Amino acid sequence: MINQMAGSRSMEFQNAPYIISAASVVGPKEEEGPLGGLFDLTAPEAEFGEDTWEKAESTMQKEALQTAIGKAQLETCQVRYLFGGDLLAQLIATSFGNGETEIPLFGLYGACSTCGESLMLAAMTIAGGYADYAAAVTSSHFGSAEKEFRFPLGYGNQRPLSASWTVTGSGAFVLSSRCASGGSVLSSGLNGLTRTEDENAAGLHNEASDSAEGKSMNGHFRNNETEPAAEGGHVRVRGATPGRIVDMGVRDNMNMGACMAPAAGDTICRNLEDFQLQPKDYDQIITGDLGYIGQHILLDLMKERDLDISDRHMDCGIEIYDKEKQDTHAGGSGCGCSAVVLASYILPKLESGEWKRVLFVPTGALLSKVSFNEGQTVPGIAHAVILEHA
Amino acid sequence: MINQMAGSRSMEFQNAPYIISAASVVGPKEEEGPLGGLFDLTAPEAEFGEDTWEKAESTMQKEALQTAIGKAQLETCQVRYLFGGDLLAQLIATSFGNGETEIPLFGLYGACSTCGESLMLAAMTIAGGYADYAAAVTSSHFGSAEKEFRFPLGYGNQRPLSASWTVTGSGAFVLSSRCASGGSVLSSGLNGLTRTEDENAAGLHNEASDSAEGKSMNGHFRNNETEPAAEGGHVRVRGATPGRIVDMGVRDNMNMGACMAPAAGDTICRNLEDFQLQPKDYDQIITGDLGYIGQHILLDLMKERDLDISDRHMDCGIEIYDKEKQDTHAGGSGCGCSAVVLASYILPKLESGEWKRVLFVPTGALLSKVSFNEGQTVPGIAHAVILEHA
Repeated sequence: MINQMAGSRSMEFQNAPYIISAASVVGPKEEEGPLGGLFDLTAPEAEFGEDTWEKAESTMQKEALQTAIGKAQLETCQVRYLFGGDLLAQLIATSFGNGETEIPLFGLYGACSTCGESLMLAAMTIAGGYADYAAAVTSSHFGSAEKEFRFPLGYGNQRPLSASWTVTGSGAFVLSSRCASGGSVLSSGLNGLTRTEDENAAGLHNEASDSAEGKSMNGHFRNNETEPAAEGGHVRVRGATPGRIVDMGVRDNMNMGACMAPAAGDTICRNLEDFQLQPKDYDQIITGDLGYIGQHILLDLMKERDLDISDRHMDCGIEIYDKEKQDTHAGGSGCGCSAVVLASYILPKLESGEWKRVLFVPTGALLSKVSFNEGQTVPGIAHAVILEHA
Repeated sequence: MINQMAGSRSMEFQNAPYIISAASVVGPKEEEGPLGGLFDLTAPEAEFGEDTWEKAESTMQKEALQTAIGKAQLETCQVRYLFGGDLLAQLIATSFGNGETEIPLFGLYGACSTCGESLMLAAMTIAGGYADYAAAVTSSHFGSAEKEFRFPLGYGNQRPLSASWTVTGSGAFVLSSRCASGGSVLSSGLNGLTRTEDENAAGLHNEASDSAEGKSMNGHFRNNETEPAAEGGHVRVRGATPGRIVDMGVRDNMNMGACMAPAAGDTICRNLEDFQLQPKDYDQIITGDLGYIGQHILLDLMKERDLDISDRHMDCGIEIYDKEKQDTHAGGSGCGCSAVVLASYILPKLESGEWKRVLFVPTGALLSKVSFNEGQTVPGIAHAVILEHA
């Protein structure tokens, strides 16, 4: 069933799991960006009705997961395992966001690469026959991340131009070994989404329900321009290349792109080599949150290996904010960055068939404030999954 | 191949993976405890030759993993995936301990339950056919944990009697779909262990090499009393019950046992129910680090469900320190606690056949200093694996 591919560390799923639903929840700054209108839920305030940033992040995770499960027309109890993580010490956003679901939880930490790690393990779990349905959820929050890694926001520290802006957002995905019989379960749209009074009190804005006539039936991968084909499209996780730690000795915690680019390059090159593919075999090679500086470094590193991916490289951190208007310097970052861009922007293009095959490579910088203050380097890691239109 | 067992969240491996090697590395306090002499490597100082506790913890992980790989007579490159974690924010002990191996890393966080989580995912990976060899490594360090969760050690804070003492130790395990042909690969003992000058400089004390004539050939699961049977014994991971978050509203971060006991009870009960077993079907039911107070609570909770496990319950946190002499109050705790007790004490008894089947249930308390200071509760989680003599 699984091809280990001797000598490589990649894996190929013969029974490639389907991503049967996805959901994205973001804060107001993300909604104001170029992808605004594509997200499932937004809040008018980044506090999400809570009194701390950490609780706000937990609320985002809870909303994202429930929305994704609802879209898949599943009961929560049908999701056998949950793979989740966030950027905070001891994963408190995840721990306090998902307890009520009672789904057994595998807590993960891969810094901003966690979205890739969670999708990979969920796919392995499905393809290995351990579950009919498994979910993956990740999040980040600008307020909680600045507090965790940098300076108190009230201090008003000036950020260098190489710094990125942590995305306030959470993305959740439900994976299954099968798509719905007779068509895509994606076409269930938001019908399955149930919301409690309490959740509505958090001030969340459900975009689909605001435009029920026009859009909400278009499938859970929002597509504002075309009606869905009756038979629907599907997205499958065809394979994966787990990341390894790559440490080039960079020590600047205000230049995450430089820290992570070598890891992205390592994973992309190993993926191409292991599967004997060329860059042109992917419609897009999409990193998580390298930003403008990291993208330059990645493209340079790839060229050194005679691989030109410049015509098909995309970075979620570049896509999510408007460079000119939003003052986010090097771009967006965080576990939530790649997750919400995948849910809102990438998967719809794969579902529609506009893209046939994409390499999705969330990237993480493995530091803590302790390791940074002790003078350690900032190693990177990048977990890649191959997503295909089916 | 895998029995999902409808209605349950447990899994049973039909091709149960073997734990083909294990290694334990501890600090001096652990070596002075009742299990002293059973660990593979000890250091005379808890700094392990490093200048920070965090680096000391990374060094322990590196040593434990290399020792386990050496005992399995493998090259590092043969280990396809590594599942690792620790207690520190952003898993810096793991990130900085395992980069040189170049093994793709799945970073995990389940607080002190991470040893169970890592074994479970490694077993799923092996049984699912994704790898011939996968490794699991976890660690904790008293110094780094106190700094991470409680007070600076220099402050000399008085610890209440309900507090536990974080174990300075790391345990590593190599899993495979097959045992060595013609007998146990365990019998390779420490022959495969290679040590560099630099590692020796860290002041590590290799117990096996100190007693090569008497003990080191007895197999990597140390057994000081009997010669190994020529055919050897094996230990297999027969099944698993992943943990879910259990929050009973306990808020005392100096009483981890009380925080975690309900989660342990939940996982043990679900395990018994899912597999239709009685407590007597296990020779031992072994929790990770409940300590004395947590053990009492667990036994009470089980009795409320008409399940008496008092005659076969063991807790790694109780076993590792001497209650009278070592002043560790409620017992030992930490990711490293269950890991080193499993490697040094539990696996040898399973290998020899003294125990035929054990439920190993590492327990974790899901808090951070931020969640605690924000007045949040301390939820628990417990991941259980079924270990069998084969």
